[in-house]
Amino acid sequence: MNQPHRLALRVYYEDTDAGGIVYHAQYLCFAERARTELLRAVGTDHARLLAEHGGVFAVRRAMVEFRRAARLDDLLVVETRVTRTTGARLGLRQDIKRDGQGLVLIDVELAFISPDLRPLRLPAGLTKGFADMEFLPSTSA
Amino acid sequence: MNQPHRLALRVYYEDTDAGGIVYHAQYLCFAERARTELLRAVGTDHARLLAEHGGVFAVRRAMVEFRRAARLDDLLVVETRVTRTTGARLGLRQDIKRDGQGLVLIDVELAFISPDLRPLRLPAGLTKGFADMEFLPSTSA
Amino acid sequence: MNQPHRLALRVYYEDTDAGGIVYHAQYLCFAERARTELLRAVGTDHARLLAEHGGVFAVRRAMVEFRRAARLDDLLVVETRVTRTTGARLGLRQDIKRDGQGLVLIDVELAFISPDLRPLRLPAGLTKGFADMEFLPSTSA
Amino acid sequence: MNQPHRLALRVYYEDTDAGGIVYHAQYLCFAERARTELLRAVGTDHARLLAEHGGVFAVRRAMVEFRRAARLDDLLVVETRVTRTTGARLGLRQDIKRDGQGLVLIDVELAFISPDLRPLRLPAGLTKGFADMEFLPSTSA
Repeated sequence: MNQPHRLALRVYYEDTDAGGIVYHAQYLCFAERARTELLRAVGTDHARLLAEHGGVFAVRRAMVEFRRAARLDDLLVVETRVTRTTGARLGLRQDIKRDGQGLVLIDVELAFISPDLRPLRLPAGLTKGFADMEFLPSTSA
Repeated sequence: MNQPHRLALRVYYEDTDAGGIVYHAQYLCFAERARTELLRAVGTDHARLLAEHGGVFAVRRAMVEFRRAARLDDLLVVETRVTRTTGARLGLRQDIKRDGQGLVLIDVELAFISPDLRPLRLPAGLTKGFADMEFLPSTSA
Repeated sequence: MNQPHRLALRVYYEDTDAGGIVYHAQYLCFAERARTELLRAVGTDHARLLAEHGGVFAVRRAMVEFRRAARLDDLLVVETRVTRTTGARLGLRQDIKRDGQGLVLIDVELAFISPDLRPLRLPAGLTKGFADMEFLPSTSA
Repeated sequence: MNQPHRLALRVYYEDTDAGGIVYHAQYLCFAERARTELLRAVGTDHARLLAEHGGVFAVRRAMVEFRRAARLDDLLVVETRVTRTTGARLGLRQDIKRDGQGLVLIDVELAFISPDLRPLRLPAGLTKGFADMEFLPSTSA
């Protein structure tokens, strides 16, 4: 079984809306923060991926289920698991939780592309890093 | 064939990110603006729905496909079609376009709920309004 | 007396916070939208200023007074007046109103700079455009 | 000399704009996060202030100087000092830094108000907390 990467974050006023809860689109921002920290966890970041591999990640598809609402001052954890690394595509399942209870579930597919939008192969070091950190399920490595 | 509701909007600096394009989560905000204007187009708004029917809309599920990127100063149109009105659920397909070309496609499912989160039936007047404006496909009315 | 440039905008859920009002930082976004439309009103935009004059505007200073709160679904108007055009600096007073009543007052100073951050003279055509549209007070033209 | 409260934060894609730098209004969000954590540092939070003292903080005035730009992946620190606690007003100076160098300086004045907008006296425990943590200059306690 693979391990999730975990990012903890606090809900601030900027994240909430007049319904008194976190604005729905904001969970995609939380998920993106977690993906950025996932890169850092395997020893790279956006600038290095561009400098060393000539690519950036672009979101291609997201499926989001909003189950329960988070509120101001909540402490949330984004659990990120790598579900797929094939060709130019990176699949992730991101589970945003409060006190261990799932609030929002995001399945996201990213493409690794050049600045002029051509698909690039995922850097081998990245896939290896995911495997070494056990973020990858054994069947997809 | 049903007609889409259309909302035009401009891309401003606040909508973009360091990749030089519109930040992906921002399209969900654009879609929400269009849903708010859809309500207004059929003669109601958030405050009236709460006052008259005791309910608010909450996003339950969103499926988003990011096909092409919008950029600073682009003029976009959000086309919104009602795809489903059953029980407490409202389904919408929202197509964000530039010069007639689809950039981002969003299928979203909303629940009409009380402030204490119980599902409520969609107000009949709302469904009738969608039908009168031809936002509804004939088969789902 | 100079005329203000006017931009009307609607308050959406994304603009509000759990206090039930517009999140304070959001008024700076509204003001920036108005500045972007002010450029368009005098016949230019961000891309053309960069292409033709090699410069972009950067906010150097902002003084913001929050007097009254805007709420969901409010229709606001941002009134923008040019207060200063000297060297590389552009000063604006932006008054965000609802039904003619001032909610938030912003005095902002922008610098016109090259992408490598050197100050540039304001394009003469821009200053002339502000004067022609009467956005400029007669004493500063 | 009083001590600043410090909050470290990372710059993510959501914070940046097409100029490749942090969007100017976003620094006000960073400052608000730091004020929320300042409350927590003295043993309270938004919900408790409302429950125990019937009040919330509203921003009344902000003076912002943008000196240098932050970029994607930067690690920033928001240093917050209490400058004034008189009647219903709380004054703060917030310095947003990268590697010890000041990027953005914010002087902000907050009012402690009831939900129906009447000014309330700052809770004595809050002022005492600021003093105990040395966030207050000795002359303003």
